[in-house]
Amino acid sequence: MALGVAARAAIVASGSELVRGDRSDRNGPYLAADLLRRGIEPAGITIVGDDPADLERALRKGLAYDLLVISGGLGPTHDDRTIELLAKAAGVGLRVDSELEAAIEALSRSVAERLRRPYADFVPGVRKQATLPDGAEWVGLVGTAPAVVLPLGDRVAVALPGPPRELQELWPTVCGTAPMRRLLERAVAPERRVLRMFGVSESSVAKALADAGGDGDGVTVTICAREFELHIDLFVQPGADARADELEHAFEEAAGPYVFSRDERSTAELVLDLLRERGLTLGAAESCTGGLVSARLTEVPGSSAVFLGSIVSYSDSVKRERLGVPAEVLKAHGAVSPETAEAMATGAREALGVDVAVSITGVAGPGGGTEEKPVGLVYLHAVGPDGQLSRRLDFPGDRETIRVRASVAALHLVRRLVTKS
Amino acid sequence: MALGVAARAAIVASGSELVRGDRSDRNGPYLAADLLRRGIEPAGITIVGDDPADLERALRKGLAYDLLVISGGLGPTHDDRTIELLAKAAGVGLRVDSELEAAIEALSRSVAERLRRPYADFVPGVRKQATLPDGAEWVGLVGTAPAVVLPLGDRVAVALPGPPRELQELWPTVCGTAPMRRLLERAVAPERRVLRMFGVSESSVAKALADAGGDGDGVTVTICAREFELHIDLFVQPGADARADELEHAFEEAAGPYVFSRDERSTAELVLDLLRERGLTLGAAESCTGGLVSARLTEVPGSSAVFLGSIVSYSDSVKRERLGVPAEVLKAHGAVSPETAEAMATGAREALGVDVAVSITGVAGPGGGTEEKPVGLVYLHAVGPDGQLSRRLDFPGDRETIRVRASVAALHLVRRLVTKS
Repeated sequence: MALGVAARAAIVASGSELVRGDRSDRNGPYLAADLLRRGIEPAGITIVGDDPADLERALRKGLAYDLLVISGGLGPTHDDRTIELLAKAAGVGLRVDSELEAAIEALSRSVAERLRRPYADFVPGVRKQATLPDGAEWVGLVGTAPAVVLPLGDRVAVALPGPPRELQELWPTVCGTAPMRRLLERAVAPERRVLRMFGVSESSVAKALADAGGDGDGVTVTICAREFELHIDLFVQPGADARADELEHAFEEAAGPYVFSRDERSTAELVLDLLRERGLTLGAAESCTGGLVSARLTEVPGSSAVFLGSIVSYSDSVKRERLGVPAEVLKAHGAVSPETAEAMATGAREALGVDVAVSITGVAGPGGGTEEKPVGLVYLHAVGPDGQLSRRLDFPGDRETIRVRASVAALHLVRRLVTKS
Repeated sequence: MALGVAARAAIVASGSELVRGDRSDRNGPYLAADLLRRGIEPAGITIVGDDPADLERALRKGLAYDLLVISGGLGPTHDDRTIELLAKAAGVGLRVDSELEAAIEALSRSVAERLRRPYADFVPGVRKQATLPDGAEWVGLVGTAPAVVLPLGDRVAVALPGPPRELQELWPTVCGTAPMRRLLERAVAPERRVLRMFGVSESSVAKALADAGGDGDGVTVTICAREFELHIDLFVQPGADARADELEHAFEEAAGPYVFSRDERSTAELVLDLLRERGLTLGAAESCTGGLVSARLTEVPGSSAVFLGSIVSYSDSVKRERLGVPAEVLKAHGAVSPETAEAMATGAREALGVDVAVSITGVAGPGGGTEEKPVGLVYLHAVGPDGQLSRRLDFPGDRETIRVRASVAALHLVRRLVTKS
């Protein structure tokens, strides 16, 4: 690796359920994002099944990079070939690590006991999982598969268990091993600046970037539309601060009022923090989002200090009886109307005994749309101690898109209400 | 491709946000699962950024397969190099397709009008997006990027736009083109048998498979643990029905009582169908799941005919006041107790006016656990016109895992209540 050239990494995720599309790979994105923060550029993520030739080809290709990180294929059965094929691709032998064998044996004996099966059934699997490429070290054991670090001159290959929870628990330890520390010391972790925007189009922000001369000169910019918000990352190499300032200024000129955050807290977390700072509690009345807004808020640990609850009023009867939406309002304006949205929000505020309440009612589709009220029409209303705000969304899309968009917009409506922005 | 050997496909997803882990690739899993159903084996999914060398290498590798499907990199800017590099890797030239150019121009003119920008700004982009490899045809336009089909002798390369909605809309049309039809006719779509289980361990099902001699002989078996359910797929080649019957029998012997479905409806959809068939309505009282159960149910189009609503009672005050959980019950047993779960379910049944109600209360963590009531302890209760069922879950895990597991278990509790199983 030449000086001044960033270290590059290949990621290989192995698993037949991944390559068949039964399950989405979560390890590749996790590792890629973490490597980038540590100053290593992820060059590619390759997903392969359990065909040995496919896996070997992917490993050989990956070994051409400064770092190869492999997830999966470390299990006890013969289908799990990561270690064997990594050794083959790297041109090293295999050995059984007796210390590792003892550690896996201890785990497996307790599993055998719990399942009431003879330990003898487990012996071949334990021996297999304790087999390492020559020169490799192992770290940690969450399940029965270890993380394996194989230094290869200046380069490093790492094998991690496939279950995301195990992988994420072991990865920081892997980064602390001597071969990984040497690699990471050569990498230059860039400074990262974050701008998050809501309510502005990706193309206008991309145009602002292009008009300002684009990225480069030590600043890498990614503009990512994620759940109807724009996440702009500036990765700034040492010495490129002035250029980063220029670009940041250009974004602010073009879309300053739309910037709502400069960190990576989820929008739900940010809204909960804003309310907590002001000593306010929150509740919701959800119709077309059917619980999504509440689910997002309660994803945040500690949300119970702010979010007291919600009423998912999917039917008109629940809107009337639990939220007190007047039957006349429903009859005159329909369930999807600004009037119903307002009545839902004020009703939820009272029924739940909260300071701030937000309501969502709309046509999520695919059925139920009319010419007057098409699929994608959503009304939002937020009410608090100092006032209220309402919003109308009218975007086509599939059911999931409409529900998610409405949920995100509901959180932003609460944010705008409490920050008076 | 030799007769009797399945056609194999490589999938390449291009996008710097994907390789950096900012966003998970959804196109690879979608295409892989669909190809498998059409009898083409997905050999690998490769995710690369916008580095031309990385993309070209992935395309060259992909062209070695019967089918290469590429998503992304078809945009109007110079960073979008899929077409240029596909032509290079395939050794063919480039040409501007005038019919395509006219179609993209029409779209772009209306965009220009909406954005109040001169159409001249769009001209280079339109020309770029209308450029195709020699010999390629284009189909469809959802945004301004077409789907491109390039026949290469017996093989086919396909380029699709990156946005999942556009890709999924164009893909069936692509499969209907002459080059794809020829390829698909050579493929043998396997029969697919599905068994879904809840409440049984992956290892005991894997053992049943191993004891029965494993897969092979024309039957491919995948066992996938997904959201605490096991999904078993048997892909059966023509002539292998007898062997598939044997394996299916082995699974039923080992875990028959745990089989709850033989199709791919989501569990929420299945539960809604069971209730609809019986003319029953459903509601929920959610504490630690905070709206997740309701969100899953309302994900299903038409759920409003069965699911009337829920009360997300995150705070004790909402449990008392909206669900009528007696203060004494909360005081004597705590919010996380079988007694509170029962009172929540019966309270929700009454408050929401539904036939069946399910409740969930537990400690999702990471804080709030005690020795007596550790993180992961969850009580569920379902009550209907003919009786009630309750369940205690006690698994460690992170907040998300505990919430999802509790949500899935709540749906299964309703299923068991209404099917009396």
